[in-house]
Amino acid sequence: MPSNRSSIAQIAQHLRDGRPGGAEALMQATVAAHQGAGAELMAYKTWDGDRALAQARAADGLLASGIDLGPLMGLPVSVKDLFGVPGLPVFAGTDSAFDAAWSAAGPLVSRLLAQLGIVTGKTHTVEFAFGGLGVNAHWGAPVNPWSGPDGARAPGGSSSGAGVSLAEGSALLALGTDTAGSVRVPASFCGQAGLKTTIGRWSTEGIMPLSPSLDTPGLLARDVADLAYGFAALDPQGGGVPQPRDLSGLRIGLPRDFFNDEADAAILSVVADSLRQLEAAGAVLVDVDLPGCAAMFDIFRQGGLAAPELRSFLDRQFPDRIARLDPVVRLRVEGADKISAPEYLRRRAELALHGRAALAVFDHCDVLATPTVAIAPPLLADLADPAAYGRANILALRNTVIANLFGWCALTLPAGLDGSALPVGLQLIAGPFAEPALLACGQAVENRLGAGPELLGRPRRVS
Amino acid sequence: MPSNRSSIAQIAQHLRDGRPGGAEALMQATVAAHQGAGAELMAYKTWDGDRALAQARAADGLLASGIDLGPLMGLPVSVKDLFGVPGLPVFAGTDSAFDAAWSAAGPLVSRLLAQLGIVTGKTHTVEFAFGGLGVNAHWGAPVNPWSGPDGARAPGGSSSGAGVSLAEGSALLALGTDTAGSVRVPASFCGQAGLKTTIGRWSTEGIMPLSPSLDTPGLLARDVADLAYGFAALDPQGGGVPQPRDLSGLRIGLPRDFFNDEADAAILSVVADSLRQLEAAGAVLVDVDLPGCAAMFDIFRQGGLAAPELRSFLDRQFPDRIARLDPVVRLRVEGADKISAPEYLRRRAELALHGRAALAVFDHCDVLATPTVAIAPPLLADLADPAAYGRANILALRNTVIANLFGWCALTLPAGLDGSALPVGLQLIAGPFAEPALLACGQAVENRLGAGPELLGRPRRVS
Repeated sequence: MPSNRSSIAQIAQHLRDGRPGGAEALMQATVAAHQGAGAELMAYKTWDGDRALAQARAADGLLASGIDLGPLMGLPVSVKDLFGVPGLPVFAGTDSAFDAAWSAAGPLVSRLLAQLGIVTGKTHTVEFAFGGLGVNAHWGAPVNPWSGPDGARAPGGSSSGAGVSLAEGSALLALGTDTAGSVRVPASFCGQAGLKTTIGRWSTEGIMPLSPSLDTPGLLARDVADLAYGFAALDPQGGGVPQPRDLSGLRIGLPRDFFNDEADAAILSVVADSLRQLEAAGAVLVDVDLPGCAAMFDIFRQGGLAAPELRSFLDRQFPDRIARLDPVVRLRVEGADKISAPEYLRRRAELALHGRAALAVFDHCDVLATPTVAIAPPLLADLADPAAYGRANILALRNTVIANLFGWCALTLPAGLDGSALPVGLQLIAGPFAEPALLACGQAVENRLGAGPELLGRPRRVS
Repeated sequence: MPSNRSSIAQIAQHLRDGRPGGAEALMQATVAAHQGAGAELMAYKTWDGDRALAQARAADGLLASGIDLGPLMGLPVSVKDLFGVPGLPVFAGTDSAFDAAWSAAGPLVSRLLAQLGIVTGKTHTVEFAFGGLGVNAHWGAPVNPWSGPDGARAPGGSSSGAGVSLAEGSALLALGTDTAGSVRVPASFCGQAGLKTTIGRWSTEGIMPLSPSLDTPGLLARDVADLAYGFAALDPQGGGVPQPRDLSGLRIGLPRDFFNDEADAAILSVVADSLRQLEAAGAVLVDVDLPGCAAMFDIFRQGGLAAPELRSFLDRQFPDRIARLDPVVRLRVEGADKISAPEYLRRRAELALHGRAALAVFDHCDVLATPTVAIAPPLLADLADPAAYGRANILALRNTVIANLFGWCALTLPAGLDGSALPVGLQLIAGPFAEPALLACGQAVENRLGAGPELLGRPRRVS
């Protein structure tokens, strides 16, 4: 068995080349990791360890008989509890399970299952994915595994259990969704890597919607190399695994405005240090203008497209659930009625306009780099006050949401630890459908900075 | 020179085979037809006869030297004043011309111009195409050429000058747009044929928007055979000219509900007589259920998608024009602010849902047949009262709007004259992107009933 520092590609290779029973052994270690940390960290709404073990044994049997169903075969994957997975309930962070029809697999989960990728369980989510910190009034928040002795910290959201599942060792890949940062914020807060795909690249069918105009499936992994492996296994375009590009000559665009304006000094310092390392290795840092961010962010702060789109979905499909929503979600859903249709359409038009105009930035650079999140993971206790929650939520999503609003793709990878030993993420942003190039850049950056597990060490709450 | 009863295909052939100067002679006849009737009928906002004549001479020269630019070369085509045509102003039915940028040709006009199809001028439109009767407080309404001695009647809208241009003989094809019936109503009212294309088939780029979710370019012609010729010349999919299919065995679906409910008895009688003729010729009449029409129509009556979409466009681009809108347009634009974003999204979702469900009707029939318009062209004098206008407008669009809301294609062709010698249109509706099959059906029907010019005779106001 390779160590838990092995890359996902090495582990997959081991399942094929090692002694028979490799998938079962891997899954036993996975289950043990969850049972060790799981009770405290609460990554999962629904844990499915027994079925995962049975599937791992089946995978071993198939591999031994010469049947290889694909690159994810036998690998433990956690799935955000917005995705339908046959046999498992969907709560979507609400107080009660949805009809079994919502458990049907959409295209992404189908591609996972067809390779006999093994679902370890359904990870917690903010209710209807509508929040960036990871809290949930119905089920509680998963605990950020980097929390120190001063108390439990937010795991990031809305894919609140996804990063935790990777950190505790109960998954090698985690499926999430990202409408404003819901993959990248938990990845950054939990010291993991995360990819938000371009809208339209991966189907959202079979996923509980938040904002169909902006919802994108995404992937979290321990590092960018694993992300690239998982991306290639799941991407319907069927390209190969993106390989690291040469760092030398890579033009990294640093937006002059917006992304650093509200960021913690400690975060800026870690990111600046990373950028200096990249520059020393031959990357070219380019100051760039990225117009429209402030205007886009204003639209987001006013409820964006998500508030009216979620409200309309609930009005039509689940009107009785509105009164039972988590208060931090309910407020925004109820307020969406005040947004007029022309205003909604203005927002859409503005987003499209600014997104097209902003593309010109890629004439000057290959990729943009920013802090992934402007703030460190807050203490959960500090989020009990709704006003404090609202402020932190907006700050958490400020830097990630721009890629959603522009219709681009982006990833985060760990850049280091801040003064409080909390992970800091570096965000790389690329244009629409540039995922392969983005993952090539991300791996180059990671190869220079060091991958998360080496760079950050072990999370404090994972024994 | 072929007679003005010749098909457009015969005329195009004549320009190539006849004596040199055929295009110029055709255009001279066209200009004369406009000058004879034009002053009274008011088809055009901007008439461009001199340039049309110059282009016709150029076409003759090119043809004589062996250069053939395509099937529309040298043919007179009128263009609704929502389309950009280089060198001609766009008013879009408003009180003042738009910036010259709006005169740039979109893909459809570019395909027309690239073949040296000759634009005779810009035909009148209801302001921003937002109305089905054809009136315009700024510029007056074109006169329906079938008006009797009791007074001028509505030409139908919003492509209010399009049908009139064909009837007066100043165009062989007319470009229009159809968001709720704006090609089919004026075609029906003026005794012409008209095609509404499926959303997405023909680009709306270069056309002043009304409702981007539903706007579709369309085509009017003297009969369906000409429509098929024009469709093939303009369609980017590049299929050949649709040929008439066999009427025998054609399953014509007759919706049990909705389409006849508010229709004038005289109109129902003409349509029923046409259907009997088709049945006698071997067509199979099938009663069908088309669920969802009443619910869709309710959405339309409440402003549908067009009111908020136009309002949002004006808010963003031309806020100062709102106060100056034609009162019948302004009222609905101003009211759109009261429609909430979730309600707008509910409407979109309902339309998509019903449209998909309704497609099942085509398991039972090849095409649907209904009266195109439930009422005869009203007297313009009777529309001066806003409440009367509102009632007539809704009735005029009732039967056409369903194809828009379902996302389908449809055509109208003349079925006969009612007791007041006013034209009655028969609407044929088919599913998305079924234009070639629809035009094949339409020609089969036309071949049995007789093409418009033969069936109806000459409009009373065209000498």
